[in-house]
Amino acid sequence: MTALTGKTRINLLIGSPISQVLAPGWLSERMQEAGYDGLLVPMHILPERLDSALPELMAMPNVDAILVTLPHKFGAARHCAELSPRAAALGAINAMRRRPEGGWFGDNFDGAGMVKGLSDAGHALAGKAVYVAGAGGAGSSIAVSALEAGATRLALHDPDTEKQAALLALLERHYPGRARQGQGDVTGFDVVINASYAGFNPNDPLPVDVSGLAGNAVVADVITDPVPTRLLIEAEKRGCATRDGTHMLEGQMQLLFDFMTEQARSLTK
Amino acid sequence: MTALTGKTRINLLIGSPISQVLAPGWLSERMQEAGYDGLLVPMHILPERLDSALPELMAMPNVDAILVTLPHKFGAARHCAELSPRAAALGAINAMRRRPEGGWFGDNFDGAGMVKGLSDAGHALAGKAVYVAGAGGAGSSIAVSALEAGATRLALHDPDTEKQAALLALLERHYPGRARQGQGDVTGFDVVINASYAGFNPNDPLPVDVSGLAGNAVVADVITDPVPTRLLIEAEKRGCATRDGTHMLEGQMQLLFDFMTEQARSLTK
Repeated sequence: MTALTGKTRINLLIGSPISQVLAPGWLSERMQEAGYDGLLVPMHILPERLDSALPELMAMPNVDAILVTLPHKFGAARHCAELSPRAAALGAINAMRRRPEGGWFGDNFDGAGMVKGLSDAGHALAGKAVYVAGAGGAGSSIAVSALEAGATRLALHDPDTEKQAALLALLERHYPGRARQGQGDVTGFDVVINASYAGFNPNDPLPVDVSGLAGNAVVADVITDPVPTRLLIEAEKRGCATRDGTHMLEGQMQLLFDFMTEQARSLTK
Repeated sequence: MTALTGKTRINLLIGSPISQVLAPGWLSERMQEAGYDGLLVPMHILPERLDSALPELMAMPNVDAILVTLPHKFGAARHCAELSPRAAALGAINAMRRRPEGGWFGDNFDGAGMVKGLSDAGHALAGKAVYVAGAGGAGSSIAVSALEAGATRLALHDPDTEKQAALLALLERHYPGRARQGQGDVTGFDVVINASYAGFNPNDPLPVDVSGLAGNAVVADVITDPVPTRLLIEAEKRGCATRDGTHMLEGQMQLLFDFMTEQARSLTK
């Protein structure tokens, strides 16, 4: 890494917890390799402090972009002056950057990262039946991107029934007749994706009932620590191809890198 | 530099402006060399946002310590639950760290850094007459440390007459009869120290009248960018020994490093 100075452009990754994130090392290194004097710094913002902390970070002149992880993806979207169409549909972002004209622009690369990660591994979603566990920021973005990518039908569930209903209504509005509520039974699904916290702690219950998994199904998980999660271990036992949270992140890294450095270019013009 | 992860402990350096600071690179590198997984990140907090931004940074569980530069040294002191005796006397800090029992502890190493830097270069202040330009955070801390180190007499001035009077009153309380108001005339002083902003911009007036400088005087400046300042160039022309802002910073680095890593050790016990 080249020397950190007071002129180094600061990008932040906010979340709670934060110890599991891998993007700061990856993206900071990529910035250095590209000759961009920037850094991505993990910042632990407690859930109840988001609305007071985020405006303070946005007001710091040496901060160019802010990446957003759980549980702040919905909350951070409300602080943006402008959202991409997909971020606006979802009401959730995982990246925001300062606009040259003032205010911040938010976008959402979670779902795009997962779909890109699966597609890069030979598991394109077009024509497939997809099951998604979790209707939070990541789950919502993945559901939208899976249907955008041509998944024929999609089922989802979330123990938070309000979130679940809201996401189903959103998908019905944008992709009528293709999404429905799931019950944890994944029989008949080609691709099963965990987008919930289940698996972050060792004693968490499995996010779906793995007894219904077909051997030719693909199982993916957003969790990056631990890797593999218990879900992926169970899926491997059944012969399934698996993709863990680090694969999804790899899919996102180029997208996020471009998002942040495009920004830097436009601001220094 | 070893990989930055979500587990890396974050230390911040706050100021406005921020582009001139050198400590982030130096101290981050020293942390890495010592096997401490930490980073010192420059954060530009605008003057009017300090009181709203600092409590948000203090509430971030992955932030261990916050270093403080101009113009926040007085303001940040008010956010500490506990101050060192010198910081309490000054009402100004340049470093604060989370206490194991909760709340934050603030200390002030500016003056100690300058005095250590001069002493390390063979210019101990004991028995000397010292002139200080600037009665802000740095100037106050340097004045206190110079008298602590045994300077016989000290003169100071600041265009902000309120700050000047407050510092003179403080010094009179702690070191009666040794400090008085200066007028910019440095005739008869052994050591002249600029602790003001003058010299940060190329067209700034000189902080003192250099025509009074004796050839055997020592002239020091707190400004780290540009180096040397116009003051130091003029002093060199007159044959004076000079110490620039980077020398003062070097004197501070070990003090600050110890302050931050002692903290890390006590919190992880």
